[in-house]
Amino acid sequence: MEFELIRQYFSEPFLPLLKGAADRIPVGIGDDCAVLRPRAGHELYISTDTSVAGVHFFPDQDAHSVGWKCLAVNLSDLAAKGATPLAFTLNLSVPKFDPAWLAAFSQGLLAQAQAANCPLVGGDTTSSPAGSPVVVSITVWGERPAELKRLGRDAAHPGDELWVTGVPGLARLALLGEMHRRAWGAALPADDLALIESLSPFGCQQATERLLRPVVRAEFAQQASGHIHACLDLSDGLSGDLQHLASASRLDFVVEESALIELWQRTLGAEGCKSCSAPMTPAAFARLPSHSLQGGDDYELCFTAAPSARKALLDLALRTQTPLMCLGAVRACDSSVPRVVFRSAEGTESTLRSRSFDHFGVLS
Amino acid sequence: MEFELIRQYFSEPFLPLLKGAADRIPVGIGDDCAVLRPRAGHELYISTDTSVAGVHFFPDQDAHSVGWKCLAVNLSDLAAKGATPLAFTLNLSVPKFDPAWLAAFSQGLLAQAQAANCPLVGGDTTSSPAGSPVVVSITVWGERPAELKRLGRDAAHPGDELWVTGVPGLARLALLGEMHRRAWGAALPADDLALIESLSPFGCQQATERLLRPVVRAEFAQQASGHIHACLDLSDGLSGDLQHLASASRLDFVVEESALIELWQRTLGAEGCKSCSAPMTPAAFARLPSHSLQGGDDYELCFTAAPSARKALLDLALRTQTPLMCLGAVRACDSSVPRVVFRSAEGTESTLRSRSFDHFGVLS
Repeated sequence: MEFELIRQYFSEPFLPLLKGAADRIPVGIGDDCAVLRPRAGHELYISTDTSVAGVHFFPDQDAHSVGWKCLAVNLSDLAAKGATPLAFTLNLSVPKFDPAWLAAFSQGLLAQAQAANCPLVGGDTTSSPAGSPVVVSITVWGERPAELKRLGRDAAHPGDELWVTGVPGLARLALLGEMHRRAWGAALPADDLALIESLSPFGCQQATERLLRPVVRAEFAQQASGHIHACLDLSDGLSGDLQHLASASRLDFVVEESALIELWQRTLGAEGCKSCSAPMTPAAFARLPSHSLQGGDDYELCFTAAPSARKALLDLALRTQTPLMCLGAVRACDSSVPRVVFRSAEGTESTLRSRSFDHFGVLS
Repeated sequence: MEFELIRQYFSEPFLPLLKGAADRIPVGIGDDCAVLRPRAGHELYISTDTSVAGVHFFPDQDAHSVGWKCLAVNLSDLAAKGATPLAFTLNLSVPKFDPAWLAAFSQGLLAQAQAANCPLVGGDTTSSPAGSPVVVSITVWGERPAELKRLGRDAAHPGDELWVTGVPGLARLALLGEMHRRAWGAALPADDLALIESLSPFGCQQATERLLRPVVRAEFAQQASGHIHACLDLSDGLSGDLQHLASASRLDFVVEESALIELWQRTLGAEGCKSCSAPMTPAAFARLPSHSLQGGDDYELCFTAAPSARKALLDLALRTQTPLMCLGAVRACDSSVPRVVFRSAEGTESTLRSRSFDHFGVLS
């Protein structure tokens, strides 16, 4: 069954993509190893992520979105480093043979692979004991010319501006909403509940799309790469991920509350709140910045660039239809421990405790 | 907890190996992507395998052996293609934080990584819902000069001799013994039980070592690579894997029963049977060739080479202390469907049905 399953859901549907890359990938699925021909003068970028049913996605979630997202979260890591996708492998463990699930998963995976022109070159499909969760691990390769500066986490400069694509926290909003709808986990705090209930159908849809089908900011990252200093993929929440940048770059990162408020106003203001039956209260709205800081699962880019790059970045954002916002700035570290500073709308500064998204505590 | 766990069990213990490869791996663990510098004129070989507790290893199995083997089965794929290991990534999903298990797993993984000089460059450690099995996926990279002929499954020549390292079926013997000891799965057929009970402690130890701590035939494969035509890693059992070679090469593969009998006599004859309290009966011994044909989990090399390479291969086997046996030959396909032919000790030929090791049916 294993070989037939691989053929039907993975080898055959993905074959055209592989054939299109035959000059770079002389051996794909079907031997002990896949073989890649690295391009001369390029470095190879590798990222890998695991998604577990009941931890990273809902067990009854539409399998098309699971396939789409499992590859997207990996491609987002490549995008954050300005690398062009080359190929990926898939490790899939399933407790039972479910043709409908496999077909939808395969189609979602294929849609993302096609969007990124990233062929599947191998993998391993295994059974797991009855009742086990589905586990998906994906490993991606990308390449980037070796002569270009790497967009490392340690590459921020003092005086840089701090940027994000999209709306960090949006996916968390949808996640909390889904958990509430399914009565999954502990009850939500009243303020979060009020917040979620005050979202219009349009706001909900935006959030849910970001949670289920994140769009990789690949085109923007590729074209902006010359302006970017430090960059990372927001997967663990803004506060934790900014701490990674601060620690690696040995600089302080300052996040402006006013910028986060403006970001949420832009996102939900016109269509997201005003049109809904229970307009968002100021108290509910005031919680949004903390969702941005804590929320994981964003798969947006967070990067620093010199102020002189501002116009070019905003033009590029417009051209690639990428929501882009300046959240703050980078400055010399004023103590021995680099920190993330939150400046309230009133101008008060406080140090953000690093609260990274912890997969050992989420959804359970 | 996730970051601390990664640091303690994976980043720190593996750091010296990574530092030793800093010229090839400028970025290891700790950024969104690892970065590799491929060597000019080389192709990159990729393999990935998943191991699930309760399917690929016993849930209560010594975690050191789990770590060792999970990497070994991947490195064996690289060895089969004559590729030199470069780096690997680890995806680990665990239902609970078990320091003793993690420490032993990490040590076993490190021992194998050190033996292969293969640094860990990244990964993903995630929780899974309570009661889930541990799932380990490993992806390895190797390289091989592009000007060398690839050791593809399709590269056998008519007239080649067919070789195996080690003793295909030995791991299966240990697996059946372990299943019997643990009363796991259906009861064993009486003949298999008699076979297992007639193994001496030495024979048992050999089999168990192969099951739990397979040694990758890397040195032999590297040095023999110039003589080898087609090659694969025996993971799904001799009959199924030979069918892969036959189909890919469009040739018939002939396995001599007499060679399998001699292989088992060499392995168990002197120490394995004679010294045990219940000597192996002829009926039990006669079942051994079928264990070779059906048994999975061998991680031995199976390859073809011209008869003129025989002396060089046997010399090399002696030098690298690699058990090596010629099992038969390759000949032109005598029908439209390439087949694996079993020639009995009496000279009768029969077609082997492909009975690949099916992970959907094993241990359950």
